[in-house]
Amino acid sequence: MAKFIMSRRGFTAALSGFGLLATACATNVASLSKPENVSEPSHTGDEHAMTAGAVSASDAESANKSVRELADEMDAHHEERMKMFPAKTAGRGNQPLQPRIENGVKVFELVATNMQWEVEPGRMVEAMAYNEQVPGPEIRVTEGDQVRIVLRNEMKDSTAIHFHGLVTPNAMDGVPFITQPPVKPGETFTYEFVAKPVGSHMYHSHHDSAKQVSLGLLGAFIVEPKDPSTRPSFDREYTMILNDGQHGYTLNGKSFPATEPLTAKLGDKVLVRFMNEGMMIHPMHLHGMPMQIIAKDGYLLPQPFYCDTLNIAPGERWDAIILADNPGTWAFHCHILSHAESSAGMFGMVTVLIVEP
Amino acid sequence: MAKFIMSRRGFTAALSGFGLLATACATNVASLSKPENVSEPSHTGDEHAMTAGAVSASDAESANKSVRELADEMDAHHEERMKMFPAKTAGRGNQPLQPRIENGVKVFELVATNMQWEVEPGRMVEAMAYNEQVPGPEIRVTEGDQVRIVLRNEMKDSTAIHFHGLVTPNAMDGVPFITQPPVKPGETFTYEFVAKPVGSHMYHSHHDSAKQVSLGLLGAFIVEPKDPSTRPSFDREYTMILNDGQHGYTLNGKSFPATEPLTAKLGDKVLVRFMNEGMMIHPMHLHGMPMQIIAKDGYLLPQPFYCDTLNIAPGERWDAIILADNPGTWAFHCHILSHAESSAGMFGMVTVLIVEP
Amino acid sequence: MAKFIMSRRGFTAALSGFGLLATACATNVASLSKPENVSEPSHTGDEHAMTAGAVSASDAESANKSVRELADEMDAHHEERMKMFPAKTAGRGNQPLQPRIENGVKVFELVATNMQWEVEPGRMVEAMAYNEQVPGPEIRVTEGDQVRIVLRNEMKDSTAIHFHGLVTPNAMDGVPFITQPPVKPGETFTYEFVAKPVGSHMYHSHHDSAKQVSLGLLGAFIVEPKDPSTRPSFDREYTMILNDGQHGYTLNGKSFPATEPLTAKLGDKVLVRFMNEGMMIHPMHLHGMPMQIIAKDGYLLPQPFYCDTLNIAPGERWDAIILADNPGTWAFHCHILSHAESSAGMFGMVTVLIVEP
Repeated sequence: MAKFIMSRRGFTAALSGFGLLATACATNVASLSKPENVSEPSHTGDEHAMTAGAVSASDAESANKSVRELADEMDAHHEERMKMFPAKTAGRGNQPLQPRIENGVKVFELVATNMQWEVEPGRMVEAMAYNEQVPGPEIRVTEGDQVRIVLRNEMKDSTAIHFHGLVTPNAMDGVPFITQPPVKPGETFTYEFVAKPVGSHMYHSHHDSAKQVSLGLLGAFIVEPKDPSTRPSFDREYTMILNDGQHGYTLNGKSFPATEPLTAKLGDKVLVRFMNEGMMIHPMHLHGMPMQIIAKDGYLLPQPFYCDTLNIAPGERWDAIILADNPGTWAFHCHILSHAESSAGMFGMVTVLIVEP
Repeated sequence: MAKFIMSRRGFTAALSGFGLLATACATNVASLSKPENVSEPSHTGDEHAMTAGAVSASDAESANKSVRELADEMDAHHEERMKMFPAKTAGRGNQPLQPRIENGVKVFELVATNMQWEVEPGRMVEAMAYNEQVPGPEIRVTEGDQVRIVLRNEMKDSTAIHFHGLVTPNAMDGVPFITQPPVKPGETFTYEFVAKPVGSHMYHSHHDSAKQVSLGLLGAFIVEPKDPSTRPSFDREYTMILNDGQHGYTLNGKSFPATEPLTAKLGDKVLVRFMNEGMMIHPMHLHGMPMQIIAKDGYLLPQPFYCDTLNIAPGERWDAIILADNPGTWAFHCHILSHAESSAGMFGMVTVLIVEP
Repeated sequence: MAKFIMSRRGFTAALSGFGLLATACATNVASLSKPENVSEPSHTGDEHAMTAGAVSASDAESANKSVRELADEMDAHHEERMKMFPAKTAGRGNQPLQPRIENGVKVFELVATNMQWEVEPGRMVEAMAYNEQVPGPEIRVTEGDQVRIVLRNEMKDSTAIHFHGLVTPNAMDGVPFITQPPVKPGETFTYEFVAKPVGSHMYHSHHDSAKQVSLGLLGAFIVEPKDPSTRPSFDREYTMILNDGQHGYTLNGKSFPATEPLTAKLGDKVLVRFMNEGMMIHPMHLHGMPMQIIAKDGYLLPQPFYCDTLNIAPGERWDAIILADNPGTWAFHCHILSHAESSAGMFGMVTVLIVEP
């Protein structure tokens, strides 16, 4: 996958077309008249005659050797990180969890444990996780389903689960000392309710939550409509869970370059379910195409609106539909720039949307 | 009131029905098939057969004595804080201020003083207050009213009042050295204007404001419509003023457990007027029921929307209507979790909505 | 311009009507019955009989000499800063950039350099700037225009430009190592695309961006509609670019008192294009009049809404129309009060809207 990354000297070579990312890039670069100019700067002062997308070096370059060397050094760090993307790490969060059906009830089992989690290559962090995933496994049901969540606490701390956005009976609300006692280490607690309302919801710890949610006790809880025609249609969907605690700035539990790219075929409608489980806002910015925002906290907006930067506050969920009509590899990142890039290159809340031609 | 809190050993006993909170809790817990199981964990490994809401301890428990003791210790801190709620403290802010009528003018008197304010039991902070209240007293008028606000400054610092959201003549705008001189210690300044527009507004210091508003010189200024039918109807209302300065994270001048619960009868429409007088966003999350957001900064939204988490930025006011259709005691808190809970338990921007059956 | 500022002793004198600001103030103060009372406090305890806007000193004053002296001292700092407004500084950002037309293409030239920038009088900061402006020059085109941007990098670091909000071919997207190589010191890179969609957009560095955008590599990119009747009409317009990095809290590259006032004639519709290039939210609050919010990120909202405080997140643009129907000089500032005022007076994200009668 690293082949899609353009190194300075190997720019043309890198576009030889392996894999989705390379294809997407090649398509875009084809719109340049002379991409071959890019791999070696042509030394001309007449930049106005240059073709768009080509680079020329001025006479000043030779006089600036040490400046150039410093710039090259910094750029090498940036390139190195980009080449790693999408980097392999141990563990993958947000994987679908299959329920067991018992007398018509969908039973999901969650086991909370202390573990180590690889946020980006080689960076292991202390985590609290459901089913050894950060975020925990995706729970997906249909409105009206009878749902049972069996939580087994194998951690060192007590815990409890709040179903954020779901409308449940009070006793199933998961707030220790208000609606239930805490679930102690070694204990099991069972939640049961009818799934409602439709939409993009979450589940997470509501005990010592500033620590436990930060360390990974969170996941997506999606309630699909019985009648899909009641919601806008889409061709594929992604969930993007934002977090910003002791694990750093993460998308679905990973930091760039270990984040996963989103992909779409040209013309697809892509639903992105944004969920913020962190303690800061994250204005997510997609390059190349607007997003149509259709729902807030699961509820359809009476009037969807368009944007390219969507501010997502802690606890909020927003559903966006992207018409993937612009081919290429598009940066998709938090626009608090210090959550996405440092002088050592991109990190944290960065991924891409690849629109395949 | 602490009776509504469920201790581990006294869970069932706690639900014996004293007071509103206990009633609310008992109702919810009644939806559990066997709440009596909760008070003492049953030692079975067959958690799948457990009734929803019941706790079981695994064989691992005995091997984890020290882990369990540590968890119990932390939980005891959480329980202790919860049991204190709603805790008594000296002073109550946001109390209605009765105007004197002079020649058809509604005259409100505000006296600003330096004082000590009890934010939570035993935590006294330096405050600047109107009429010895933090937030200052609620000013409530009807659109078109002729209003006079007499500010007497008995503090050590100069000050001035800005009527945030109200449309006043420029000279009444309260910005020292732009629209008026500062009101010096010992002086009095009189503001006079016609109340408009309708909505949830605020008044606060506009002099050395980062300090003075943080220390308490702020209050709600509500302009009611002449014709109530021009606005959505509701059965009861609350104002929730957020602040986050040197007093810590507060709702109406108090930190949990000294915050006040909101109560409603089942079926009530509850209007909540959120007002942010702090320097940070606070995404307020209500458990158990959505909020319909009907107005921003006093202005009716052309298209109200639903949510369960509402991001409120400094200076903003949002009006929410909650249909209290889900009985129980529901957590209501800022979803920046570090504003609501620490390893020592809940604190800061936490309260509950009690829906009485 | 400093004449519009009211000093305590020279309050009446200051209103003698020089310049726009003084005129605006005089108009508002005329609504006071006895503005002449303001210049010297009348020593009466009967403040209830006082006319609105007048100041009286109590008997307590004489006993509070040292308190009063301390208050006077602080107020003097506040007044001094206010009197400086609008302060002259070297350099002005966001100036219109005239394109050269080549074969029907609008060609804009941007030269990025390292420079010193005066943020407020005497405070020079290290900057990276396009065409020696912070923000860079305003690029303004019409939808459908063929646009060429020639970037010459004369800085010590590599760079690249992302056209934030514009829909371009992928190769013109400006993200080093995804869509192009970085533009090295001494090199030139040419971007070319058709301008779309209509709206308030931005351009900024997308290389080491947390540093480069913070230091000034950013500007407004406005795409006007071919058919103006497709957008709400207005009489005059302003762009307000927010930033909050190493230069402090700035509006269009300057901190108060070096910010520029906005002016309008009574009855004007004023379009304000808010753009956040910083890393924090900035809820901008206008005194005296509401703002009608008509577009987000360039896209017209299906249902414009009214507010007096607009929360603007990093990367967002919001278009507001203000009906300037309230004469006077109105504070216009970020409502995170610590971005606007300290105990030494106003600073940072503060300006005024002057509505001339």
